[in-house]
Amino acid sequence: MRPRQSSSVSGPGIPEALRHAAPAEIRARIRAGELSGHTAGMALGHLQGNVAILPGDLAEDFFRFCQRNPRPCPLVGVSDRGDPGLPTLGADIDIRTDLGGYNVFRNGKLVEEREQIADLWQDDFVTFVLGCSFSFEEALMAEGIRLRHIEQNRTVSMYRTNIQTVPAGPFSGEMVVSMRPMTTRDAIRAVQITGRFPDAHGTPVHLGEPAEIGIRDISRPDWGDPTEFRPGEIPVFWACGVTPQVAVRNARPPICITHSPGRMLVTDIPVYAAAGRMT
Amino acid sequence: MRPRQSSSVSGPGIPEALRHAAPAEIRARIRAGELSGHTAGMALGHLQGNVAILPGDLAEDFFRFCQRNPRPCPLVGVSDRGDPGLPTLGADIDIRTDLGGYNVFRNGKLVEEREQIADLWQDDFVTFVLGCSFSFEEALMAEGIRLRHIEQNRTVSMYRTNIQTVPAGPFSGEMVVSMRPMTTRDAIRAVQITGRFPDAHGTPVHLGEPAEIGIRDISRPDWGDPTEFRPGEIPVFWACGVTPQVAVRNARPPICITHSPGRMLVTDIPVYAAAGRMT
Repeated sequence: MRPRQSSSVSGPGIPEALRHAAPAEIRARIRAGELSGHTAGMALGHLQGNVAILPGDLAEDFFRFCQRNPRPCPLVGVSDRGDPGLPTLGADIDIRTDLGGYNVFRNGKLVEEREQIADLWQDDFVTFVLGCSFSFEEALMAEGIRLRHIEQNRTVSMYRTNIQTVPAGPFSGEMVVSMRPMTTRDAIRAVQITGRFPDAHGTPVHLGEPAEIGIRDISRPDWGDPTEFRPGEIPVFWACGVTPQVAVRNARPPICITHSPGRMLVTDIPVYAAAGRMT
Repeated sequence: MRPRQSSSVSGPGIPEALRHAAPAEIRARIRAGELSGHTAGMALGHLQGNVAILPGDLAEDFFRFCQRNPRPCPLVGVSDRGDPGLPTLGADIDIRTDLGGYNVFRNGKLVEEREQIADLWQDDFVTFVLGCSFSFEEALMAEGIRLRHIEQNRTVSMYRTNIQTVPAGPFSGEMVVSMRPMTTRDAIRAVQITGRFPDAHGTPVHLGEPAEIGIRDISRPDWGDPTEFRPGEIPVFWACGVTPQVAVRNARPPICITHSPGRMLVTDIPVYAAAGRMT
């Protein structure tokens, strides 16, 4: 499985009405089948989340995995067992229908892509929602930091590293990072800005020499598109939401359902409220 | 149960050697029975934690409760099921012996206070460690903000509020807050300073009018000692680690073991690393 996860937050072609729509309206339109693409750039100012739905007997260990690895796995909401709702993230959410697309994994392998999962639902399912990079990218751009992959309408470059996550039960594996090229001046500002968003991976985990975290060839990402560097730019690396997907794949659960890449859960949580909640 | 939880971080009589001892040395001396009092002021610069040990079948819901209430319940470490170790907080930790005192609750009632719990250990126990206020009090004092309860060697004033926690399974109840009187100038600085420590309750949840959060008489705390106010001071309120104790009491688990008030788990985590980890 090589998810082509998009981190674009200003996808071209997002109508102005969707950029400023309420999260509940976006979810209602997805639920009605009127919207099915990437959610990047929609309901700006609201936290979007990676989703992993797991059988109940794996929930306690996945909780541990997230607690032990908060940078790649910032937990922003967890359902009650068997409950398709997520009332802490939005009163009307039904996780069986409110994503623009679902990936179904069995024993760690992607077996199916779907538009809804009502008929797969199990009474013991637990839904985990993890913050994603859309929030901090929005904040970076609002402060005038330009993001090349967005300007070029590409998927951010992502890499396996030699940074090991702290294992929990069957969940383990290396940390995956996303990379954005910046001038050193912007990199310093980006540390400050993204540090305000621990729910969206927080500060970078590394900047500069890729080999220091086990990346041999910066021009060949493991996921996403290659990124053009310009003179004076250094790579800046953030923990990435693909990390828990690798951990889940390693755990080989009988079933696991995730969002399709780039088709996130749009929550009611204001990005800046989330920043304030944790700081 | 009315725990007399101390928040003093500079307990008089703490020998200089203990203030600057390594966390592992403090734990070894507690384990050997050479130390048994409050841990306030020991191994300065390292995160100390509230401890709750619960039967395995309650662990998943207690995880949810902490995730949904990060201000009063900042999770800093969780054991594997049945494992008395906490390797993410210190390689040598044995939670059965490394606290200066234990409270044993059965069906929500305090039934026993003990020096160790080896003979009570169950194969399904899960240990939860939550950050405590010692870390942020240390930081406040380092920046020159004086804390009256510490200067007067009293226990910080704590109050029930009308702020409801977000329930999870059997865990629910009102938020408990601790209160420190400050000038408005210091209160503003305290917001900034404590905001760097989300693992230690983070920013205040309220300041000023006590009635706004349901406190009728500021001179009569529900736990701890009353606090003297001086002219120009306002009360500043932080979420408090007694909150999860109230939630656990409401859940009436067949057994729950906590630290004795003020006798925290001394971890290896540097306070400023913990601040950085989350920001």
